[in-house]
Amino acid sequence: MMRRSFQVAARLGHHKALLRTPCVLPKLGSASAFGSSTNSLVSRFCPEQTDLKDYALPNASWCPDMLSLYQEFLEKTKSNGWVKLPSFKSNRDHIQGLKLPFGLVVTSDKNDWRIFTRCIQVEGQGYEYVIFFHPFKKKSVCLFQPGPYLEGAPGFAHGGSLAAIMDETFSKTAYLAGEGLFTLSLNISFKNLIPIGSLAVLNVQVEKIEDQKMYISCITQSRDQQTVYAKSSGVFLQMQLEEESSP
Amino acid sequence: MMRRSFQVAARLGHHKALLRTPCVLPKLGSASAFGSSTNSLVSRFCPEQTDLKDYALPNASWCPDMLSLYQEFLEKTKSNGWVKLPSFKSNRDHIQGLKLPFGLVVTSDKNDWRIFTRCIQVEGQGYEYVIFFHPFKKKSVCLFQPGPYLEGAPGFAHGGSLAAIMDETFSKTAYLAGEGLFTLSLNISFKNLIPIGSLAVLNVQVEKIEDQKMYISCITQSRDQQTVYAKSSGVFLQMQLEEESSP
Repeated sequence: MMRRSFQVAARLGHHKALLRTPCVLPKLGSASAFGSSTNSLVSRFCPEQTDLKDYALPNASWCPDMLSLYQEFLEKTKSNGWVKLPSFKSNRDHIQGLKLPFGLVVTSDKNDWRIFTRCIQVEGQGYEYVIFFHPFKKKSVCLFQPGPYLEGAPGFAHGGSLAAIMDETFSKTAYLAGEGLFTLSLNISFKNLIPIGSLAVLNVQVEKIEDQKMYISCITQSRDQQTVYAKSSGVFLQMQLEEESSP
Repeated sequence: MMRRSFQVAARLGHHKALLRTPCVLPKLGSASAFGSSTNSLVSRFCPEQTDLKDYALPNASWCPDMLSLYQEFLEKTKSNGWVKLPSFKSNRDHIQGLKLPFGLVVTSDKNDWRIFTRCIQVEGQGYEYVIFFHPFKKKSVCLFQPGPYLEGAPGFAHGGSLAAIMDETFSKTAYLAGEGLFTLSLNISFKNLIPIGSLAVLNVQVEKIEDQKMYISCITQSRDQQTVYAKSSGVFLQMQLEEESSP
């Protein structure tokens, strides 16, 4: 469990408050945010060899729409600049060897920590999703299939489950596109309900970066784009994860 | 699983679009929305006798803050007009005997459906929460303790997990305060991270009802109110659930 002192250490405060403490916020120029660093972030984020289980791989629960769109994007990773992001059980795995800002500490206790969007491990019952990222275009596409444990209205995904996968896709996109690390705001306009077991496609775009804030937009639709499920936007705070020095 | 035709039936569309189809939207006057109907909705929502498991009861994982604030509010249910809402495994249990609008149908297949915020059944690992509602004041308080399966940044709750419990608390409040049934929008401004295993208190208030839309606000804080975790607002669409006629 977290020590209570982390609560104080973890205060993000308001952006204005953050700007009063420049010592903990490295100033990132646009070159740093949108230059070659994206490629190195992506390389680090997508290790070629790892023992960690990647949950963003097809399984028997995926609906035909999800499977075929996955294959389409997988083809695009070969020549069109798209990258398939792995999805490990915890963000602790994704940031191995990196130091958190604000004195946040990764505890090494024996708790079974899981990233929220991988909290249900039974295939098909909870979140099924995979994120593809385009470093040059600063875009992401998330294929999301909600299972019956994500229900809100009978037969349909809970609005909160869509909010959470949006936040997760935004977070990964924000980090890889320019070290956007903490969600400052999330605004969602819901248009239609997503049927449980069907595919929803999140199209995510980084719109701009200003004052260490990254502005991201998203439209969530059915695969044939005939049904808009939601439109949303988010603002993320840029904050570099430093390499941990060796002991 | 849901039949594909539900996707069409379930289109909520934009509010303006909804107003073009008044036949499916009963016009609710303020008396209906804020009058005696609230009490009957609450009575129906909180059955005195039921075989259904109520997940909003203390268990060994609750931290001392959560337990003691729960006891405080339980005292307030005796004389101060607060009501403790039960929390069943699925919304299907909450709306038993009611007919959904828009031709949505509760399927009776053998899937193990769960409301998203009760998707993890191991005590303390996922969502621990209880909602108290005040019918006269149109307020709710949700005591929320995120477990290690709700992680985002190491040691802290995922922003999406907070978004989801907000949406859930808003939904129940909106329904009981005036038959607000579908989330139209959700806007969240995140201020601080919530440590896993600690208590966050959501104070929810219905601000107004206009044109069958209900406006709700929320501030999420630590128990001592010294740390604001988030400020948020939501808009819900009013829509009466009809009683199902007996066969």
